Amino acid sequence: MRMSLQVERNAAVAVVTLNRPDALNALDTATKVALRDTLRDLAGDPAVRAVVLAGAGRAFCVGQDLREHVAMLDSGDPAPLSTVREHYNPIAELVTGMPKPVVAAVRGMAAGAGASLALLADFRVGGPGTKFLMAFANVGLAGDTGVSWTLPRLVGPAKAAELLMLAEPVDAATADRLGMLSRLVDDDEQVLPAALELAARLAAGPTVAYAQIKRQLSAAAAGPLSDALAVEADAQAVCGQSSDHRASTAAFVKKERPVFEGR
Amino acid sequence: MRMSLQVERNAAVAVVTLNRPDALNALDTATKVALRDTLRDLAGDPAVRAVVLAGAGRAFCVGQDLREHVAMLDSGDPAPLSTVREHYNPIAELVTGMPKPVVAAVRGMAAGAGASLALLADFRVGGPGTKFLMAFANVGLAGDTGVSWTLPRLVGPAKAAELLMLAEPVDAATADRLGMLSRLVDDDEQVLPAALELAARLAAGPTVAYAQIKRQLSAAAAGPLSDALAVEADAQAVCGQSSDHRASTAAFVKKERPVFEGR
Amino acid sequence: MRMSLQVERNAAVAVVTLNRPDALNALDTATKVALRDTLRDLAGDPAVRAVVLAGAGRAFCVGQDLREHVAMLDSGDPAPLSTVREHYNPIAELVTGMPKPVVAAVRGMAAGAGASLALLADFRVGGPGTKFLMAFANVGLAGDTGVSWTLPRLVGPAKAAELLMLAEPVDAATADRLGMLSRLVDDDEQVLPAALELAARLAAGPTVAYAQIKRQLSAAAAGPLSDALAVEADAQAVCGQSSDHRASTAAFVKKERPVFEGR
Repeated sequence: MRMSLQVERNAAVAVVTLNRPDALNALDTATKVALRDTLRDLAGDPAVRAVVLAGAGRAFCVGQDLREHVAMLDSGDPAPLSTVREHYNPIAELVTGMPKPVVAAVRGMAAGAGASLALLADFRVGGPGTKFLMAFANVGLAGDTGVSWTLPRLVGPAKAAELLMLAEPVDAATADRLGMLSRLVDDDEQVLPAALELAARLAAGPTVAYAQIKRQLSAAAAGPLSDALAVEADAQAVCGQSSDHRASTAAFVKKERPVFEGR
Repeated sequence: MRMSLQVERNAAVAVVTLNRPDALNALDTATKVALRDTLRDLAGDPAVRAVVLAGAGRAFCVGQDLREHVAMLDSGDPAPLSTVREHYNPIAELVTGMPKPVVAAVRGMAAGAGASLALLADFRVGGPGTKFLMAFANVGLAGDTGVSWTLPRLVGPAKAAELLMLAEPVDAATADRLGMLSRLVDDDEQVLPAALELAARLAAGPTVAYAQIKRQLSAAAAGPLSDALAVEADAQAVCGQSSDHRASTAAFVKKERPVFEGR
Repeated sequence: MRMSLQVERNAAVAVVTLNRPDALNALDTATKVALRDTLRDLAGDPAVRAVVLAGAGRAFCVGQDLREHVAMLDSGDPAPLSTVREHYNPIAELVTGMPKPVVAAVRGMAAGAGASLALLADFRVGGPGTKFLMAFANVGLAGDTGVSWTLPRLVGPAKAAELLMLAEPVDAATADRLGMLSRLVDDDEQVLPAALELAARLAAGPTVAYAQIKRQLSAAAAGPLSDALAVEADAQAVCGQSSDHRASTAAFVKKERPVFEGR
């Protein structure tokens, strides 16, 4: 049986691949559960120092599986109303709270919750065929999977309102100009390799510091400077006690290249 | 008697026009009261599915009527100190809280509270003659009508500080580059038609979802991701129970074009 | 003895210069204490209406003095763990809370806490040789001196995560494009003169209003619109009672040029 979610390990990099290419990696219940539980496992695995999110085939992910969704609605199943709390919200918390960098390899279309998933990552690599579509309003819905929080911070609130209300596709060049992509490579075949290369670099970095940087940015995004400063003090104390800090400052003074072991 | 505020209905679109062209639509007390009360009425009117804000004549709005303001100050009238709480703050809450899209047709100058008013809208259409001027500091004032909140979210805090402190005009091309305009049309005569066309399109959309998108973005702009996710779950539950959602997902599966009735 | 921090007064402008050019103005304990205490003095001095932050020699500031830091760590001194709370956090609060404009003259490199310091200012003037380097992760640290709060607001959270995690230098043109610079002049020799000119202009402005604008923007950056509107109402009441407001509105009505006395 082919699993709808594949997880591979490449040294300290975990590659999580949505694997329903015939459905453009639409998120049915099984895939959402697998993604949520996999992210939880990776968060707690100290051997994993970076995570790549990818999609098999020609799309990254087209979001909620609307065929399953309509079938459930027609049968009176309450699941469509609970999937946000059961699946999408935990996934959003797990990606942003992941104590290591997350890189999305956004080849092809990222739509609806698939677009939201990509926007939760710390880095997004795209190619000429990358498209984002905040498709929710096309089926009478508002945003989910954190898009109401991530999108306005990336592109500003006016552009976020426009993308969510008008629900028109954003091509790769526009996404890059708007700051929705961290890297735009020339060839769609290079999206995954570029994402893997970036993840490998990050997996060789100061993992303790990266976790604290993510924590700082999450905290600072939502409160006053005074709160952010308290988190910064605490984060620097955590990092200051890491062996990576001691070794890398010693290397700095000796003008040597630091080696980070992720602890 | 010509009213200083005109309200016209164009199918499901309400067009609110500041109508003191000889004063460049400066906001005197009567106009502020009329604008506030009109916005309150439109918010509660289910037949209205989109709102356009416009100015008669060659300016959008130059903000506070300083002649009235100085006359009041000279007479010892405390009104200038209370107008923020009595008029500008309710107007700001009503535009951002309006449960349907608001489009500002910014032809010509938008200065002071007039600029703030435009920045509160969900969409801003401008033309070559559009100018924004955060004029407050030129008369020794800080910002009002929400500009301290909207402007840094649109252009970043450093540019917001610069625009508010230096109080220099921002031309249309710069405003567009900074993200202060949603659409820049080629001809000032096309600003209002383009705004009306956009509003008509929005008035034919999923109004329930639009209201929830606005609510999500307001909530997400001010708090942590976890709060935003709770609002998203609630918003999707509201949308999921709308007839527009049921009809449009059914249309999607049948590959038909959805028709939204706004409920 | 040459002081590691120089303070000069140029009419109503105070120029604070980090003065350890041989160490690229690295922040040792003495300099941090002097900077913190000087900022506190300037905040309370009504004769000072604008502040310029500058660095002597070819760099603005390369951040924490890592030689001192490593020597302290090696000797078991707990100071490196307390410097964030003792020095960097107060400096961050003092620059953003300074009730008058702060202009950073960023000539050459601004790295680590030096970059953070520049980002706290209201305005940043740079030249072709200006570079920002969020160097923290290179020695296994997260950000400090407010950078986790200022940077994502200036460049968005994705670019902020990238700059903090990858810790690569940002050249002047990129910094300008990202919104990290308020002014980019053609010649590094013109960075300080341009900063002084801007500060002199600001020192001739409505100081009461500038303080309220800074207060409004700080408050609005961290909370909902409703809170920002309450701050705006209070801020306009403060400004409305200033003599600068009365004089400048009177000048406006008479079509005269206003003169601001800063009170």
